Amino acid sequence: MQNSRSKPCSCPSLKLREVASMYFTMVAAFLVILVVALQGSAPRQSDFPYKVPLDPQGLLELSWNVSYPEQAVHFQLLIRELRFGLLFGMSDRGEFENADLAVLWSDGHSSYFGDAWSDAEGQLHMDSQQDYQLLGARRAPEGLYLLFRRAFSTCDPKDYLIEDGTVHLIYGILEKPVHSLQAINVSALHGGLQRVQLLKPNISIPQLPSDMQTMEITAPDVVIPSQETTYWCYMAELPEGFPKHHIIMYEPVVTAGNEALVHHMEVFQCAAQFDSFPHYNGPCDSKMKPDRLNYCRHVLAAWAMGAQAFYYPEEAGLAFGGPGSSRYLRLEIHYHNPLVFKGRRDSSGIRLYYTATLRPHDAGIMELGLVYTPVMAIPPGEDSFTLTGYCTDKCTQLALPAAGIRIFASQLHTHLAGRKVVTVLSRDGRERQVVNADRHYSPHFQEIRMLKEEVAVFPGDELITTCTYNTEDRSRATVGGFGILEEMCVNYVHYYPQTQLELCKSAVDPGYLHRYFNLVNRFNDEEICMCPQVSVPQQFYSIPWNSFNRDVLKSLYGFAPISMHCNKSSAVRFPGEWEKQPLPSIIERLREPVPRCPPSPEPQPAAPVPLNLGQLRR
Amino acid sequence: MQNSRSKPCSCPSLKLREVASMYFTMVAAFLVILVVALQGSAPRQSDFPYKVPLDPQGLLELSWNVSYPEQAVHFQLLIRELRFGLLFGMSDRGEFENADLAVLWSDGHSSYFGDAWSDAEGQLHMDSQQDYQLLGARRAPEGLYLLFRRAFSTCDPKDYLIEDGTVHLIYGILEKPVHSLQAINVSALHGGLQRVQLLKPNISIPQLPSDMQTMEITAPDVVIPSQETTYWCYMAELPEGFPKHHIIMYEPVVTAGNEALVHHMEVFQCAAQFDSFPHYNGPCDSKMKPDRLNYCRHVLAAWAMGAQAFYYPEEAGLAFGGPGSSRYLRLEIHYHNPLVFKGRRDSSGIRLYYTATLRPHDAGIMELGLVYTPVMAIPPGEDSFTLTGYCTDKCTQLALPAAGIRIFASQLHTHLAGRKVVTVLSRDGRERQVVNADRHYSPHFQEIRMLKEEVAVFPGDELITTCTYNTEDRSRATVGGFGILEEMCVNYVHYYPQTQLELCKSAVDPGYLHRYFNLVNRFNDEEICMCPQVSVPQQFYSIPWNSFNRDVLKSLYGFAPISMHCNKSSAVRFPGEWEKQPLPSIIERLREPVPRCPPSPEPQPAAPVPLNLGQLRR
Repeated sequence: MQNSRSKPCSCPSLKLREVASMYFTMVAAFLVILVVALQGSAPRQSDFPYKVPLDPQGLLELSWNVSYPEQAVHFQLLIRELRFGLLFGMSDRGEFENADLAVLWSDGHSSYFGDAWSDAEGQLHMDSQQDYQLLGARRAPEGLYLLFRRAFSTCDPKDYLIEDGTVHLIYGILEKPVHSLQAINVSALHGGLQRVQLLKPNISIPQLPSDMQTMEITAPDVVIPSQETTYWCYMAELPEGFPKHHIIMYEPVVTAGNEALVHHMEVFQCAAQFDSFPHYNGPCDSKMKPDRLNYCRHVLAAWAMGAQAFYYPEEAGLAFGGPGSSRYLRLEIHYHNPLVFKGRRDSSGIRLYYTATLRPHDAGIMELGLVYTPVMAIPPGEDSFTLTGYCTDKCTQLALPAAGIRIFASQLHTHLAGRKVVTVLSRDGRERQVVNADRHYSPHFQEIRMLKEEVAVFPGDELITTCTYNTEDRSRATVGGFGILEEMCVNYVHYYPQTQLELCKSAVDPGYLHRYFNLVNRFNDEEICMCPQVSVPQQFYSIPWNSFNRDVLKSLYGFAPISMHCNKSSAVRFPGEWEKQPLPSIIERLREPVPRCPPSPEPQPAAPVPLNLGQLRR
Repeated sequence: MQNSRSKPCSCPSLKLREVASMYFTMVAAFLVILVVALQGSAPRQSDFPYKVPLDPQGLLELSWNVSYPEQAVHFQLLIRELRFGLLFGMSDRGEFENADLAVLWSDGHSSYFGDAWSDAEGQLHMDSQQDYQLLGARRAPEGLYLLFRRAFSTCDPKDYLIEDGTVHLIYGILEKPVHSLQAINVSALHGGLQRVQLLKPNISIPQLPSDMQTMEITAPDVVIPSQETTYWCYMAELPEGFPKHHIIMYEPVVTAGNEALVHHMEVFQCAAQFDSFPHYNGPCDSKMKPDRLNYCRHVLAAWAMGAQAFYYPEEAGLAFGGPGSSRYLRLEIHYHNPLVFKGRRDSSGIRLYYTATLRPHDAGIMELGLVYTPVMAIPPGEDSFTLTGYCTDKCTQLALPAAGIRIFASQLHTHLAGRKVVTVLSRDGRERQVVNADRHYSPHFQEIRMLKEEVAVFPGDELITTCTYNTEDRSRATVGGFGILEEMCVNYVHYYPQTQLELCKSAVDPGYLHRYFNLVNRFNDEEICMCPQVSVPQQFYSIPWNSFNRDVLKSLYGFAPISMHCNKSSAVRFPGEWEKQPLPSIIERLREPVPRCPPSPEPQPAAPVPLNLGQLRR
């Protein structure tokens, strides 16, 4: 996801356009050239396996690698056209204030590198502990390469803690000479943000069979619309009589030059209940799009910017083809075009690698979290309200095989108010393991992510999914539902061997919610119409949201029994009593890991590192 | 307060007795003698102005000073009889597990000093960052002096943060040679705890008048009872016709040799409503004690172990004597005698310094916090439940002079479940200043503490006092009240100039509490008798304490209007409407101060410091 950073009253895309034009017309500007470095030789491509463009034009390109033994990330930043320096860093949600930044700056004569932080007003300060460690700088025909290192965690309270899940990277460009780092206010800079999963799991690539075939599901020569956001839909189909195969890997196919525009792509399989689906190649929100395409929602493959090839575990593959499986596939591409380029052509998509030699297990996808129902609601004006969905011991006891299942990947999902998603595995009332956690989750960056290690789930285990929402900008309650302004809390877990359990989700018992509405009615002095004939959303919308009503709703969700959806398919429950189930009780929580401190090697003292400068050119 | 450390089924006083006898009969033990040091010269007495015995026998004596510019404490620990080393450190509430420790240990040949921490099982670990910094060791006739330094805050998550208020110091004695720090489990050691205010305020001593006189209120040759805890009461009286004077200072008078037994002392003035009070000299809980002594509760002076002389600010003195003031004083001494010494005689007490030349202002004492009423209650089984008492803008507007008052000292008070007490000053809805905060408060250590700086309070300001309670060991609700198993939340603030406002406290509106009882009645499936004719404590005792009832009580206290007690004396309110007052709203909270990191000078690496050893004697 590529967003320009915006203050309430500014026009971010314009700003970025200015930046772009300034780059192209910088004949009169000083050009500061950094020569050489602390390291001489050019790093190999394989040294930095992950790569993402930072800005919409791809003038800044970040590559990186992750060293788990060192608990550190090594960054290689390519700056195609350097002016008077740049900022690169991380912050909670991509804001420039309260950010942790590496800064390269020049006063026109000398250049410096330092670790800095911005305060709540955007003012830069040199960090007392230098944790972005410069490893080298290197000139190449394509631009300047800056190499630096950052430990996941430092002991510095001003530093960002690099965690699993989404990291909001930010960049800013210095267009004038600056005489000291303290002279920079980031709120006045041109820049933007880029979301990535920095801590890619360290997974060994499974052996691939010799009979492996490939199939490209790509959009045929699309003219990318000249608007910031487009979701493009393209229908593809498998050959008639295509037998069952296993998808064992897939990877992105991105048209050269469009790397900064293709934000994410997904391939969905259509519902088997329909014999045929119409052809379509156009925007997903077009009125021309046939309604039946809404039945193409079973994810076969998903990719987002910065992600690499996705490999299934050696024991399993994702079944497609054969009887009981639709021949129709829908490719969805999210184009992000904030600079509103016109006439760009694109044929991106996803390349599936599959085999007819079926692996021992079919992979399955299971939905965890909350049922899509308005009984789960978030009051307005909350900065971090949590809702929790349960997959109870009773359901896993009934639906999972004795040998258990193994979750190997996960895709988190909320609508626009989602800020964090965490799924925890609990056994005998004790939290055992985080299945997947994204404490900087963004609804604009929903990848399928490989887990660092497979999570084994056995009958009787509980899977607890908690989503955190921000509704500070809303004036009425946000209820659960399908609408983009309603909310969801879902973790699609990818696992094997496939079972009948497709959905293991919960919602608060409606009877208890009714007691809550009555209580609100009686406790508050105002006379509110909480008549039972009114719909649940209407009842939520009419609550006067004072601290008591808000707190009691929280307490209700933490106490009231739940209605379980322990389903074979989204409509068919396993047999059993699933209403008014007790909330799983947790007698032992997982401890927050204590960050290792201090990082090794020792952080450097609080002084900027001067860089050798070549001549200064006008 | 001197407590032996106890595990659930052990007998702490016996343990300590063993330690004592072992010390006296250690002829066969190795005696490890540490000679010399990193520093040669003996520090002067004035270098370490604060002193406290650590153990009940005074074999370990701690002196210290506080450097606010360096943000560090310098410790001098006198070990009168060293065996194979000792542990000294700090922990949240004096427990040996999860503690931050300086350790001196010997394997019989070599001695070492290191910074360590104990885990939840009491196992010691060398700290990766050495923040207890050894400055020297010195032999003297009275024993070995160990000098070391510790920054208030370090960047090490294993370290204790030294804050204002109470610090629980712990000590443990190594009675056998140990070959490594890792071989020590603190749960098996003899040791104990001592509470002190480490961060004494840095106050310049006001000028004292030439006509200053002294009066000693001391117990006359008391035989300290041979039991762990005694509160001793002694009645003294002022001369007849003693005119109004100002107390401008007081200090402890502790009988030599009893420094480790006299835990705290207070002088109370009796109520002026009675013309005379009987003489008494005996235990405060004796059946022989005349009931009228219960009317002697107005604090004139209070001292606790580790405290020094108390000085009134130059502009004010505490009035005593003269018309309208009782001639009768009650001295209360808490003797703490865990080793059950017999026949110890004591004549300790407090020396008052007073002047007839009255200072510009009388000092006053005002009660902040919660009214003593059962409507404020704490559910059972809570590890940290908070209750808040308010002194509202409406009350200060009415009762304080336009020029304001200045608070210069504070005594925090709760009963046995109290764990933290904080009073914050709020103006225009914004928290401005902490008046006094003790995040490691103990009901066993209630000093009058000078504030680091005087706090000016103006009409319209709000004073918000929050107490945190632990009721994990209780099975029914703890209601507010006078009983030792009921609770209080009080901050006695000492200020000038004296005003009519003696008490500015609150409690939840009883009507809203009644709605809560009704709600609990209706919401829960159980049928509970919440009949209005039953007393409030009885209603609290009959609540089934599930998470919902607990959370909703919390929400109620954070939402419901309050009944204000804005009183001239404890029974007489200022005129005005004080029922169903809105809760003060806080639109901006004080930020937690971010600890300075890293401390200077740089912490040492994670290796024990070897000490030069003299010869080893059997």
